[in-house]
Amino acid sequence: MTDVAVAGGGLVGMAVAWRSALRGLSVTVVDDAPGTGASAAAAGMLAPVTEAGYREEALLGLGTASLQRWPAFAAELEAASGRTVGLRTAGTLVVGFDEDDVRELDALHAFQRELGLAVERLTPREARRREPALATRVRGGLLVLGDHSVDGRAVHAALLAAAETAGVAVVRGRVADVAVAGGRARGLRLEDGTTVPGDRVVLALGAHSGGLPSVPPLPVRPVKGQILRLAGAGGLLEGTVRALVRGRHVYLVPYGADRLVVGATVEDRGFDARVTAGGVHDLLHDAIEVVPEVEELELAETLARWRPGTPDNAPLLGPSRLPGLVLATGHHRNGVLLTPVTAEAIAELLATGALPEVAASFTADRFAVGSSGEVRGCR
Amino acid sequence: MTDVAVAGGGLVGMAVAWRSALRGLSVTVVDDAPGTGASAAAAGMLAPVTEAGYREEALLGLGTASLQRWPAFAAELEAASGRTVGLRTAGTLVVGFDEDDVRELDALHAFQRELGLAVERLTPREARRREPALATRVRGGLLVLGDHSVDGRAVHAALLAAAETAGVAVVRGRVADVAVAGGRARGLRLEDGTTVPGDRVVLALGAHSGGLPSVPPLPVRPVKGQILRLAGAGGLLEGTVRALVRGRHVYLVPYGADRLVVGATVEDRGFDARVTAGGVHDLLHDAIEVVPEVEELELAETLARWRPGTPDNAPLLGPSRLPGLVLATGHHRNGVLLTPVTAEAIAELLATGALPEVAASFTADRFAVGSSGEVRGCR
Repeated sequence: MTDVAVAGGGLVGMAVAWRSALRGLSVTVVDDAPGTGASAAAAGMLAPVTEAGYREEALLGLGTASLQRWPAFAAELEAASGRTVGLRTAGTLVVGFDEDDVRELDALHAFQRELGLAVERLTPREARRREPALATRVRGGLLVLGDHSVDGRAVHAALLAAAETAGVAVVRGRVADVAVAGGRARGLRLEDGTTVPGDRVVLALGAHSGGLPSVPPLPVRPVKGQILRLAGAGGLLEGTVRALVRGRHVYLVPYGADRLVVGATVEDRGFDARVTAGGVHDLLHDAIEVVPEVEELELAETLARWRPGTPDNAPLLGPSRLPGLVLATGHHRNGVLLTPVTAEAIAELLATGALPEVAASFTADRFAVGSSGEVRGCR
Repeated sequence: MTDVAVAGGGLVGMAVAWRSALRGLSVTVVDDAPGTGASAAAAGMLAPVTEAGYREEALLGLGTASLQRWPAFAAELEAASGRTVGLRTAGTLVVGFDEDDVRELDALHAFQRELGLAVERLTPREARRREPALATRVRGGLLVLGDHSVDGRAVHAALLAAAETAGVAVVRGRVADVAVAGGRARGLRLEDGTTVPGDRVVLALGAHSGGLPSVPPLPVRPVKGQILRLAGAGGLLEGTVRALVRGRHVYLVPYGADRLVVGATVEDRGFDARVTAGGVHDLLHDAIEVVPEVEELELAETLARWRPGTPDNAPLLGPSRLPGLVLATGHHRNGVLLTPVTAEAIAELLATGALPEVAASFTADRFAVGSSGEVRGCR
């Protein structure tokens, strides 16, 4: 009997599998195309401070805890896989364009100082000294030195290699359901009719986590994001640039030798897979507005994927109402950032039976579920 | 011995091959990937009037002659191939946004009336009655009823089928040079070292026509165009819409069940194959400005290809300075439009030795060539 069957071989699923295998557990991951979901689209920002909303302090705590783990996690992953993951520690520059944007920067700055974070308010000139490619119309900036970034696809490739070395088996197949016997999860049923047994089952299907027939209702919905990858950007940016362009958010994240991720739309449209004219237009428009030289870059890739959204934008970690089924999903916009802390917490739960304190407030039972099974929001 | 070896299996090369085979000639076409060059990008507008510049009346005459041939050409091609080519006869609506745009529309209208063409000046309301999806900011329009369009890729597929049925051989290989013996063209040399013999050779390599070592200098240069294909546009437009958006040109050409081509940039950048952030942005921006609902369409494809440009924007048709080498290139922005008249004229030349009157003013000897071989512009 395999100890753990993991549904989903994205960043979260593979990281959980890897860390669990290192704890001595036998692990099988099931995915028909590992790493081609939201993990393939992720920009790789490790930015708990600039990403968290003002009233999401619990999430900010989890993100900060995960960010602290990233350097060691990256180092161990690179050593285990023999691959680089593109960790950049250059920080994030947040800039604004009009008065409202600047007011929002000020509010963010005040919030960050309240939290005791290392953030620096920059004049337009100081912002352009840090990032000379910035448009001259930039009205002001915030330098968040603690924010990092990684190359999400490189991380996934490294996780695949490290997990395999650690003994994880990856089964190529599409998960149809959780196999249930005697009232508890006992493995995964695949679309081809076969079953992958598992003493415990981890659900890491991202936006698709809500759709399995035998799984109790989960408050996970797809939040569509469109994202672009540009080539030819070698030396263009020092680090991640986030901008408010007249109230609209855009980010530019350099990675690799000459690449740039530009993202991302946030759309409630269900599982709509279309890259749209309007989505691509808005991203290009805002990116060019922030860094005019973007105009000359090659549009190498356009992509639409779904984030696993939850009512409070925080993940679902740990036990579920189905005995034996462990949740590692609902990471919304923070999948890459939260990968180390998620993997550590879930591996700990699987190995010892206890969910670590850092993840304790992110169990699914924080949401009330009605008698008919519908999720009613936060308790 | 094959009668004719054709270098290039794009729209022009395949049409020349097909018509020549129907005249009883044995024909071999050489192309490593037929129809994947400029032919794959072409929007398929058959619009001599809206496309010709004011001082390009000879080209306008050739375009008009070819447009007249299109309905019969399409019908014969569809019958011969058993495929449809998507001929649309709905006409073109040209619209403008600001005062300068409207002044340019007025000038175009005056020029078209001078030529005795069927063109109608529309008020903004009349323009929107014809195309209800137009933005309300449109300031005025011109309805050119005689303009048609075809699905360029469907035309190419039909030409391949019809040519094969007519006995044309298509050799998959890359043309390295024209084979010359006894001072005349005798076939094509391929990159793999083999030779395809031909008593006459037709050069139909589009933007690449200028680069063969044994071919006398030709005034053909690559003119880069970026173009988009959108999906989900069923019923959105009645016919082709061209627009001047504050001085910038954009066109939207419906084809198939629900497709729309949006084009095109015009860039002098040599053989630069990159789809750029700026190119795609400008096309999307202008298309959305003209037809706001474009925002909701799927961005199905982005493409960059090279038009074969010439100093006077007109093609090079007929004999060259190398005996036995016949030119069918330099079609710039008018490749699809000029396909029937080019095929007819070149097939006539190959079958009878005489270039028809309609093509007579488009031979390459209209350009002076210096003693060192450089092209010096129009004589």
